[in-house]
Amino acid sequence: MLNWHLSQDCFSDVEMRRIWSENSTLSAWIKVEQTLANVQAQSGLIPQEAADKIATFSASHLDQDQMRDAMTMVGRPIVDLVAQMRAHIGPNLAPYAHYNSTTQDILDTALAMQMKLSLDNITHTIERLITQLDRHISEQQDTQMIGRTNGQHAVPMAMTNKLQVWRSELLRREQALQDAATRGLNVQIGGPLGDLAKYDGDTGQAVKTGVADALGLGQIDPHWQNARDGLSDIVTALGALCATLCKIAHNINLLSSSDIAEVSECHVTGKGASSSMHHKRNQRASEFAEAVSRLGRQRSEQIGELTLHQHERSGGVWIAEWVVVPEVFLLTSGALSWSEKMIADLTVNTEQMALSL
Amino acid sequence: MLNWHLSQDCFSDVEMRRIWSENSTLSAWIKVEQTLANVQAQSGLIPQEAADKIATFSASHLDQDQMRDAMTMVGRPIVDLVAQMRAHIGPNLAPYAHYNSTTQDILDTALAMQMKLSLDNITHTIERLITQLDRHISEQQDTQMIGRTNGQHAVPMAMTNKLQVWRSELLRREQALQDAATRGLNVQIGGPLGDLAKYDGDTGQAVKTGVADALGLGQIDPHWQNARDGLSDIVTALGALCATLCKIAHNINLLSSSDIAEVSECHVTGKGASSSMHHKRNQRASEFAEAVSRLGRQRSEQIGELTLHQHERSGGVWIAEWVVVPEVFLLTSGALSWSEKMIADLTVNTEQMALSL
Amino acid sequence: MLNWHLSQDCFSDVEMRRIWSENSTLSAWIKVEQTLANVQAQSGLIPQEAADKIATFSASHLDQDQMRDAMTMVGRPIVDLVAQMRAHIGPNLAPYAHYNSTTQDILDTALAMQMKLSLDNITHTIERLITQLDRHISEQQDTQMIGRTNGQHAVPMAMTNKLQVWRSELLRREQALQDAATRGLNVQIGGPLGDLAKYDGDTGQAVKTGVADALGLGQIDPHWQNARDGLSDIVTALGALCATLCKIAHNINLLSSSDIAEVSECHVTGKGASSSMHHKRNQRASEFAEAVSRLGRQRSEQIGELTLHQHERSGGVWIAEWVVVPEVFLLTSGALSWSEKMIADLTVNTEQMALSL
Amino acid sequence: MLNWHLSQDCFSDVEMRRIWSENSTLSAWIKVEQTLANVQAQSGLIPQEAADKIATFSASHLDQDQMRDAMTMVGRPIVDLVAQMRAHIGPNLAPYAHYNSTTQDILDTALAMQMKLSLDNITHTIERLITQLDRHISEQQDTQMIGRTNGQHAVPMAMTNKLQVWRSELLRREQALQDAATRGLNVQIGGPLGDLAKYDGDTGQAVKTGVADALGLGQIDPHWQNARDGLSDIVTALGALCATLCKIAHNINLLSSSDIAEVSECHVTGKGASSSMHHKRNQRASEFAEAVSRLGRQRSEQIGELTLHQHERSGGVWIAEWVVVPEVFLLTSGALSWSEKMIADLTVNTEQMALSL
Repeated sequence: MLNWHLSQDCFSDVEMRRIWSENSTLSAWIKVEQTLANVQAQSGLIPQEAADKIATFSASHLDQDQMRDAMTMVGRPIVDLVAQMRAHIGPNLAPYAHYNSTTQDILDTALAMQMKLSLDNITHTIERLITQLDRHISEQQDTQMIGRTNGQHAVPMAMTNKLQVWRSELLRREQALQDAATRGLNVQIGGPLGDLAKYDGDTGQAVKTGVADALGLGQIDPHWQNARDGLSDIVTALGALCATLCKIAHNINLLSSSDIAEVSECHVTGKGASSSMHHKRNQRASEFAEAVSRLGRQRSEQIGELTLHQHERSGGVWIAEWVVVPEVFLLTSGALSWSEKMIADLTVNTEQMALSL
Repeated sequence: MLNWHLSQDCFSDVEMRRIWSENSTLSAWIKVEQTLANVQAQSGLIPQEAADKIATFSASHLDQDQMRDAMTMVGRPIVDLVAQMRAHIGPNLAPYAHYNSTTQDILDTALAMQMKLSLDNITHTIERLITQLDRHISEQQDTQMIGRTNGQHAVPMAMTNKLQVWRSELLRREQALQDAATRGLNVQIGGPLGDLAKYDGDTGQAVKTGVADALGLGQIDPHWQNARDGLSDIVTALGALCATLCKIAHNINLLSSSDIAEVSECHVTGKGASSSMHHKRNQRASEFAEAVSRLGRQRSEQIGELTLHQHERSGGVWIAEWVVVPEVFLLTSGALSWSEKMIADLTVNTEQMALSL
Repeated sequence: MLNWHLSQDCFSDVEMRRIWSENSTLSAWIKVEQTLANVQAQSGLIPQEAADKIATFSASHLDQDQMRDAMTMVGRPIVDLVAQMRAHIGPNLAPYAHYNSTTQDILDTALAMQMKLSLDNITHTIERLITQLDRHISEQQDTQMIGRTNGQHAVPMAMTNKLQVWRSELLRREQALQDAATRGLNVQIGGPLGDLAKYDGDTGQAVKTGVADALGLGQIDPHWQNARDGLSDIVTALGALCATLCKIAHNINLLSSSDIAEVSECHVTGKGASSSMHHKRNQRASEFAEAVSRLGRQRSEQIGELTLHQHERSGGVWIAEWVVVPEVFLLTSGALSWSEKMIADLTVNTEQMALSL
Repeated sequence: MLNWHLSQDCFSDVEMRRIWSENSTLSAWIKVEQTLANVQAQSGLIPQEAADKIATFSASHLDQDQMRDAMTMVGRPIVDLVAQMRAHIGPNLAPYAHYNSTTQDILDTALAMQMKLSLDNITHTIERLITQLDRHISEQQDTQMIGRTNGQHAVPMAMTNKLQVWRSELLRREQALQDAATRGLNVQIGGPLGDLAKYDGDTGQAVKTGVADALGLGQIDPHWQNARDGLSDIVTALGALCATLCKIAHNINLLSSSDIAEVSECHVTGKGASSSMHHKRNQRASEFAEAVSRLGRQRSEQIGELTLHQHERSGGVWIAEWVVVPEVFLLTSGALSWSEKMIADLTVNTEQMALSL
């Protein structure tokens, strides 16, 4: 249901879907080819005319049926993308497209670009969440509620104790994402074995650095074709963020249960309606925040096995990664969206809280 | 990439996508409402005219934008679907649509219908796979190859030893799916708490049995609204099938590696082409069968946590299930498709095998 | 903490620890060698005297330091166990110990023996649980409580609705274990490649059948050295049982929370004491049942990846299985123990229930 | 088998077992009580005499049977440990032991101490591994081997390309552990709800800082009783290290397979012996490194679900954490031990490599 008209907004944010859409991904692949060509031209490896011509190619030029048929045949999308790009720039310049490169250079560098964009988006959303939390912290300075440990009433505490814990977790999750980004946002420029062997002398290294600079990405020496640990760090950090969101959402859901009712989501007629029980006020934002973040966390846990490449690289794990990485980003965005709604709409019922003190 | 024009055929089978498409699912929901109404009419609970009018409703009548907006607001799709269905049948008969029912009755019963169809499809595909294996077993009666344990050459063995192991696994996987189906393919007819409390006397039970019979499904007493173990059995059995397919695919991939080369996929020009190394013959069917089955298995492992409902049921796990179940079926179908190609195209190089004996 | 003096009783049952202890496992390995020798003697393959002498060997004869040193060197325990057994029976008969066999024959057959014993134990415990549930069902025939869906009060229902759902789940879990047992409790008798190649004609098959009959186990044709799907079915069925126990325990824990307090564990002074809050009545059986069953379920989910053997078999997954399988049995036994306590001690507070109706 | 005489050395390192043993853990709990008392005495909250007397208590004073019985009854170990400590220091000073504290203060702070020690140990082992890799890199400056992608021979490459990838991964894994340590190595000093509510004014904060300084740990404001994300970061970083070790080990295992044989573990008579095939040279270090690191990674993936505390904290996830965290450290140590052996003993067969160029 992730991509259904009916329900896609329940599982991901529209901006994140834009970043990871088929069309954006095709464009990202083309952008990598173009950036590479431009840097190679600047290094004198290919004619600037070739780079300029390549720069005129866009996803709208692609015969997508042909590309799909080639994908099914070849098992990788870039062979045909390059063929169409070469046809576009004409036979004389054709050899300069995808020059000295391999499929993984394109896919991995584009992936890093998309992840970078996505992480910026996620960081901003976390900051908005923290701003909302700060508002509640400020408003609830004097609110006392019962603490609950192991399901039992413990002793009274300030409501801000709870809110500050959430805030501190979100700050650590932001930091963890930044740490992961320092290891996982890198270009892949290296050719078949990632070793720049097709280049003479230091030229390869210069091209790699040039592409990294042009795209605002880092680089790894020698390469990460089969060293997916940095990528795994990012996916794992998203999963940890989802775990935090899941815990917060579930806590709000419990606190807004009929049996506790100390907080609630603002009520709008129809929201959380039941098809059978008209009196119910289901707490949808917390429920969806919990469910979607759980999905995001669960999927992030799959990435570890997918790092187990054989030899220089192997499709039997890599192909699975193509699916997992975008989905973890999408689900994280959905979990964040619901969390924002949930925190923004959070209403505290201090009178109800007082009953348990 | 599961639903991209470019790559959907790489991850699932077209028939399975048809069963689990948005449109088929909407239709399945409507079909449950219609079947329910018909059985209720036969039991004299609602006018036959209502059931007949409900039977004229179809997914094509749905205002899908309205339904999406309601989904975002309500968090469940059935409230609005029923509203549209009721508008279709007119105010007099409206109360007889979705009579005595709850959202979960509709979603769960439709899910069971879709799973039943899918399991039939999967069983047939497994049988075709076994037929292909039987052909190889028959052809390789006299083929000797080296056995490899812990990566080392052990002693020679009949190639049929390997093929028979695969065959026996597939047969057990088929049996496991059938066992799971006996526990997991059930109607959900029970109303808000699954207890048929809105019905008088035994009428509810009669309606439940009537719907089960009409749809060829089983039933559970009292209900499975929050008892997802049978569903989990099915998902888990799919995961176990995927694990078997993954193991077979990886074995074929290893045997077709340059270093062993004892088997290969038939070569077609362009198949498995490399964007950088034109001499390579990548073994795509085994590679994709491995990757897609691994994804299917990994996702099936998520279902256990999703059975942990609170009280009578809770959306924080249920909503996640909406995504996981269809995807495991889709990925299983993709893994089976690639496996069929792989086994059908398998070429045995007995001369190469003889070199290691 | 699974094996600590302090806490082992919190995580597993003493009887299950006995079955899977180091000493019992050594004895099980020896028992397999003895049974095998006896059947081979009856088939005329080795002298009966050898079988009789082998039958006098026991775990108490083993130099366990030597065995450990050999384990570290060889990576498998059977080479040295056989060496010690052969030394015990003397040089003339020595060749008849472990005749025509391989390490995996011994380890796998012993594993099946231990699993069979464990499954009997588990089945009996499930039946005791069901008996306890039946008592509650009988006692609570007239008890009404509020149903809770998505955290909100729904409508009143019979408490037996909840209890019957638990009962039906446990019955299905028992059936699922039995189904899995039909696929997963098999001898492994086959030699290096599982193909009985060291035997002439049908003798191997006769020995295999003989050992299976003697131990009350099934058999698989050709073998399951690298076809771990049946074993995986058993582990998975245990995980599904754990999931059911986890759900039940968590529901009881929630219902016994201070905010609901509709049920409780019988109170004994000191039980669930807090080191800081003396008024608290922590609900320990439900809490531990939840935690231990969650651990059991999580570990069961690891078995799928461990079925991915390469070629005829590979230690890189098999060795991990040695740890996972016993632990899932142990944790399941712990979850069942706590569940028994929890259900036996369950006290229903009907007056409190009435307040929410 | 993790704790068997026969096999414990196969799954963990003796030093790591020492850190996480039952006795060391009891001692760590006592050490936290002692450090806390000392800081409280320095702050004038309790008599220095009490702190001095508490400092004379050790694990050897504990009646471990009594403690086990209390654990089974109470479900937590600290209530009785404190009772025994109080008995030891006499009735007058007794109230000053465990002053203003709760069970979780003790368990969590001790856990952080043990993790800190363990991480130091792991970091040193990684550095020894890198030193060994550097030796190989230096020795293999001129070694050419075939690159293998997707199981097929690609083009020749320097062997150092492979070795440098491993080295860079290990360096990143070391960095990731350090990043996680900055978020996850914290004291827990706060009392029942972690909010230092039992202390007047800033005293609580001073005590918390004092304990953190005394133990070389960090602190979190307000607390991490139910905010397990930092701990989860550490466990996850260990899992990622294990994934890297698993990938390296499997690559070496493949390269040392009979079919490739480009590297091998130095051979010692008997090492990797087969109970049935005397010619085999099983590659045990790579096999065990793969298996044990896979186990470590799999278990680390369980930690995410265990962060999902309810309200201020809940045993249903926390208790499971008690098992998972030590095991991930132990398995990581075992994976590192085998990896050290494997890299130290690695022999490169350049002649065999040349055959595939």
